[in-house]
Amino acid sequence: MYELSDLIDILSKLPGVGKKSATRIMFHLLKNSDYSHNLIATLSEINANVRQCDTCGQYTIHRTCPICLDPHRDRSKLCIIEEQNDMLAIEETHTYSGLYHILNGAIDPLNGKGPDKLNLSNLQSRIKNDDIHDILIATNPTIEGEATFLYIKNIIENLKPQIKISKLATGIPMGGSLEYSDKLTLAKAIMTRNFL
Amino acid sequence: MYELSDLIDILSKLPGVGKKSATRIMFHLLKNSDYSHNLIATLSEINANVRQCDTCGQYTIHRTCPICLDPHRDRSKLCIIEEQNDMLAIEETHTYSGLYHILNGAIDPLNGKGPDKLNLSNLQSRIKNDDIHDILIATNPTIEGEATFLYIKNIIENLKPQIKISKLATGIPMGGSLEYSDKLTLAKAIMTRNFL
Repeated sequence: MYELSDLIDILSKLPGVGKKSATRIMFHLLKNSDYSHNLIATLSEINANVRQCDTCGQYTIHRTCPICLDPHRDRSKLCIIEEQNDMLAIEETHTYSGLYHILNGAIDPLNGKGPDKLNLSNLQSRIKNDDIHDILIATNPTIEGEATFLYIKNIIENLKPQIKISKLATGIPMGGSLEYSDKLTLAKAIMTRNFL
Repeated sequence: MYELSDLIDILSKLPGVGKKSATRIMFHLLKNSDYSHNLIATLSEINANVRQCDTCGQYTIHRTCPICLDPHRDRSKLCIIEEQNDMLAIEETHTYSGLYHILNGAIDPLNGKGPDKLNLSNLQSRIKNDDIHDILIATNPTIEGEATFLYIKNIIENLKPQIKISKLATGIPMGGSLEYSDKLTLAKAIMTRNFL
């Protein structure tokens, strides 16, 4: 039989939730049993029905996700990202109106994750068959993300050399300071400085 | 059928969880289905079995909670608190070794909560029958908490006038500053200043 401490342990494994918040959340759940039942029902049903969009790989409960179906999105643009959550981060900026493709991670040979583990075959068929002119490869600026960037850039250039490829700018974050920037970021910002 | 946004809406109603953390939590739940199933199973079982301790009113899955059963606790001391979570806050200070009594809230006539809604009959029988010498009434320093304090103080004095009653000290929080203290807190700290 589960003890209350088991529930605290499980809740404290949620992202951004420590032991103290987990305890607060547990009391909230115990005090509001209607809410708890609602949460259990919703999570159970979503868990049973969730799938990845046939086109882009985003989580959805439909065959195709709302963004891939949206007639107002610019279908000549594709943004390639590592994870499902990255889409939300980009959508929140309101600066991108094209479609997405989710890789399900990045190439990470040290952890046994080769290109075969990524959602690439579908990407290749999209590049071949769809009318895409402009691809933003928005992998993370990490070793794994950079390796994935080069790998995908190569695939695109082999398939359709005329496609315009771009990557996210790296540099000092807005509101950041030179003094507290790490050396690598500052060096990159100097090397890729914008001439006006 | 529930959409993913329904799950985000529900999760964002958890204490300390906003829309952004709710989204992160949802992706975590979708990515780790074993974890999700574990969470659902634990929460469902706890929800079905949780009850309030027969003695103190704390949430537990047993008849009596571990603190009331603990032979090392000082049974001559009782701390009366409004909510279940308050017990954890006090336990974390490691300055109290007695037993607890949870009122399930405070007297709040404006919201239709009279003394009849509080866990008081059980408290009266504990005061009458148990060998309690020292009661700390640790209600919140709010209007409702103060009203509850006076009400309970009266009950105790009528039942067993020889019991030592105390309440938590109010004043400027440790690490706080005079400049940013509210007037009421500072006034109270001056009026109840400690003579050395």
